[in-house]
Amino acid sequence: MVSLQIGDCSKQAKAASIKRTSWNCKLAEIKQRNMDSSQLSIKLIEGPKAPNTKAYNFSYLFCLSLLICSPCLNFFFISRALFRSPEPSWSSRAATEAEAVAARSCSGHGSAFVDGILVDGKHVCECNACYRGPDCSEFVQGCAADAESGDPLFLEPYWRQHAASSAVVVAGWHRMSYQTDGDYFISIELERHIRKLHSHVGNAITDGRFIIFGAGSTQLINAAVHALSPNSTVSSPASVVASVPYYMVYRTQTEFFNSRAYEWKGVTSKWVDKLNSSAPNFIEFVTSPNNPDGRMQQPILPGSSVIYDHAYYWPHFSAIKAPADGDLMLFTISKLTGHAGSRFGWAIVKDEGVYKRMLTYLGINTMGVSRDTQLRSLKLLKAVLGEERGAAGSIFEFAFRTMRERWHKLNKLVSSSDRFSLQQTRPEYCNYFGKIRDPSPAYAWLKCEREEDKNCYAVLRAGGIISRSGYKFGADGRYTRLSLIRSQDDFDLLIRRMDALITKEKARNM
Amino acid sequence: MVSLQIGDCSKQAKAASIKRTSWNCKLAEIKQRNMDSSQLSIKLIEGPKAPNTKAYNFSYLFCLSLLICSPCLNFFFISRALFRSPEPSWSSRAATEAEAVAARSCSGHGSAFVDGILVDGKHVCECNACYRGPDCSEFVQGCAADAESGDPLFLEPYWRQHAASSAVVVAGWHRMSYQTDGDYFISIELERHIRKLHSHVGNAITDGRFIIFGAGSTQLINAAVHALSPNSTVSSPASVVASVPYYMVYRTQTEFFNSRAYEWKGVTSKWVDKLNSSAPNFIEFVTSPNNPDGRMQQPILPGSSVIYDHAYYWPHFSAIKAPADGDLMLFTISKLTGHAGSRFGWAIVKDEGVYKRMLTYLGINTMGVSRDTQLRSLKLLKAVLGEERGAAGSIFEFAFRTMRERWHKLNKLVSSSDRFSLQQTRPEYCNYFGKIRDPSPAYAWLKCEREEDKNCYAVLRAGGIISRSGYKFGADGRYTRLSLIRSQDDFDLLIRRMDALITKEKARNM
Repeated sequence: MVSLQIGDCSKQAKAASIKRTSWNCKLAEIKQRNMDSSQLSIKLIEGPKAPNTKAYNFSYLFCLSLLICSPCLNFFFISRALFRSPEPSWSSRAATEAEAVAARSCSGHGSAFVDGILVDGKHVCECNACYRGPDCSEFVQGCAADAESGDPLFLEPYWRQHAASSAVVVAGWHRMSYQTDGDYFISIELERHIRKLHSHVGNAITDGRFIIFGAGSTQLINAAVHALSPNSTVSSPASVVASVPYYMVYRTQTEFFNSRAYEWKGVTSKWVDKLNSSAPNFIEFVTSPNNPDGRMQQPILPGSSVIYDHAYYWPHFSAIKAPADGDLMLFTISKLTGHAGSRFGWAIVKDEGVYKRMLTYLGINTMGVSRDTQLRSLKLLKAVLGEERGAAGSIFEFAFRTMRERWHKLNKLVSSSDRFSLQQTRPEYCNYFGKIRDPSPAYAWLKCEREEDKNCYAVLRAGGIISRSGYKFGADGRYTRLSLIRSQDDFDLLIRRMDALITKEKARNM
Repeated sequence: MVSLQIGDCSKQAKAASIKRTSWNCKLAEIKQRNMDSSQLSIKLIEGPKAPNTKAYNFSYLFCLSLLICSPCLNFFFISRALFRSPEPSWSSRAATEAEAVAARSCSGHGSAFVDGILVDGKHVCECNACYRGPDCSEFVQGCAADAESGDPLFLEPYWRQHAASSAVVVAGWHRMSYQTDGDYFISIELERHIRKLHSHVGNAITDGRFIIFGAGSTQLINAAVHALSPNSTVSSPASVVASVPYYMVYRTQTEFFNSRAYEWKGVTSKWVDKLNSSAPNFIEFVTSPNNPDGRMQQPILPGSSVIYDHAYYWPHFSAIKAPADGDLMLFTISKLTGHAGSRFGWAIVKDEGVYKRMLTYLGINTMGVSRDTQLRSLKLLKAVLGEERGAAGSIFEFAFRTMRERWHKLNKLVSSSDRFSLQQTRPEYCNYFGKIRDPSPAYAWLKCEREEDKNCYAVLRAGGIISRSGYKFGADGRYTRLSLIRSQDDFDLLIRRMDALITKEKARNM
């Protein structure tokens, strides 16, 4: 039987100026005296009086707080362990790796990727154009501004801000089969979400239409041309045409695949007068908004089969005026969410025969679209659909704001110059936002106005800007396309180089 | 200033027979008396004496235990929180969803998928053929055994057992760009792992060769035919041929794409005598091991351009005798890891010109392979390469064991019948396993031996077995292909139906 005055211990602690160890000290005393614990009792007694026992009192206070707080803390930890959702098991290794890579800093001028190259066990930063160094912090002096391709990296910051809603975990056994729950290798849920999205945005009618998936709209372009071409070897090949300036791939694919069923016949307008009442064996590409100049286009050959390319018919780039209602319409996730690397697009098709011929093409070409990509696309569309219509920070608001600002900056700069001009744009009423909106095209269709500047691409290249020549759009070399949808780094550099070019021109004119 | 004998409180608790609430009671007393906490002290005093104070002593013991255990417990929780790897943040929502779906039980006769249909907020089970019901537990009586397609689901159980090493987390901003770290839309790390894998297995030489990715070998078949065809419109089209029985897609694609650059010319053997010394404008498919009969094949037309399809040249299906060394070789992940749904294949190409033409084809056709698929394929190959060569439970050992057992069962059954026969196989030395191994082909090439059984597919179909007719391989209808690589359910039912068919035949013969 032992009586232990805790105060003794605290006094020792005080003497040794180790106030915070008093509790351990007390426990040690108890242990050392090898007490019979059944004969112990705890009593709260009157403490020593102030003023000469201030530190002493503090120790007692500390002890009491511990006595009260410790079980509370226990309660907190235990209930947290009991009531939280179960911790990931098989997915945690992949999650740890993905989060570690995501946390890698690349100075805002690059990214590290889980499937990127490893150096010393760490994923290296892949730097944006004109940046280098281990963390992409070094600007490459004299580097040309890249405004060439339609790489939609302007949306990357959005997805970094929406990490939780857009992450996907793919199990090792996810959809190993050729089959899915839908016919023809497609995910029913993804198809359903695509229909929902068009209804949400109001940019296309999907009711009673067939939907087909492709590896980007790229794959669907040729699938559509195939499906609209004559099925028989005795018919003459279909004539494929597009209006200038046109997206180059229409021509490249048609010529490259070199099929006996179709051939490239150039510019649509040159056939208008030649064909009297109808053009039944013509396949006409109608890109709306147009790439490169953003114009809303309509078919011009009566009786032609029309492929509507609506890659840019989203609130980012264009006022949504009415749901598109073409017989065969193409869309792509590249320009919707910015996931060009995923290679996912879809066609909305009215005619069942055309739909089935496209399906056959896709089956024979690649046996449908990667099911991993379909899973990811579904997640991205869910994230988009989870947002309130046009709300601040939502993808469409973010994307529109970014594009409008970029267009405004470039337009202002070019307007100050006599040497260059841009396509004409004006504010328009948009059903999606429910208001008049400023222009926000994906590309600037730049014209060199001086007589001697016949190759506008070369003029810009000399000024440190890489653009895409008008020649590549079947147009005059006096035109060139500047991409406004690339990374912020690319755009900022474009503005700097453009500014320098115009400033130099003004200085020369003075 | 207050003096509180904790014993008082405990006494009350004892009286009320609520021993476990004594601690709360003490706290309440302290609070009720509104004590000035700075004037409190704690003292361990001699407890009331036994024997009439047993419960009383228990309370004190409980208090003391609490006093000791509680901080220890907190110490445990806090150190756990401090020293464990950081918890997933943005990936945790996706991980929770994926793990919940994976935990869904489908009675072993189906699977739930993250992108599957939801009913009442739960992902439904997608049942294997011949099973139905909410948890796929109901067998559909009289259902035909599906042995038709090459759906490689025999590997699904392996990946379920290797969940942690094969899971992938894809961040929302993963490889949004058209570009990757490698040229031509490919991941350098994935290319490196493919080379490593071939060196590990010893089934192909990759040193000094180019590697190109496709959406399954399906896409690469036509890319290769394109690349080996004449580049000029003045040359006559290339003649595409294959030896019977051949994989149908060679013919289907060549005819379907209807190019001016090549045409299907049927069976290789019929050209051997017609061409004297060489066949420079011939493209010869050599499938080795062959689909459907598993034979190791060699080209037979001197001077032809050869496309070696090595989809099945893995230790699962064939003895690895020497690294393949063809000019143009095709492989696919579908038959390696079983991920047919991912649509990923690769070609190993010796000639730079051919490689570049294939690249152009893939660029124009789909702008390369989905970067999401590349990420996942990399993870799968890492899992395969992380295993010890041929170790028990490793993918090659598991897959070989499964296939050998299936072949053994079917072969034994068919051998007991006079009506059917299978292709001849024999044990062979395998470099990969370093020993003689039993046969384990992916398909059974079944022959109906009776004179009247001219349509072997129909004979089996009448017996409740769906196979793929010999006609589809350019062969006699007396042959039909049975797939041995589908799910265990499919295989088990095939054996049951085959057994019933043979038993019936024997009964008839008796």
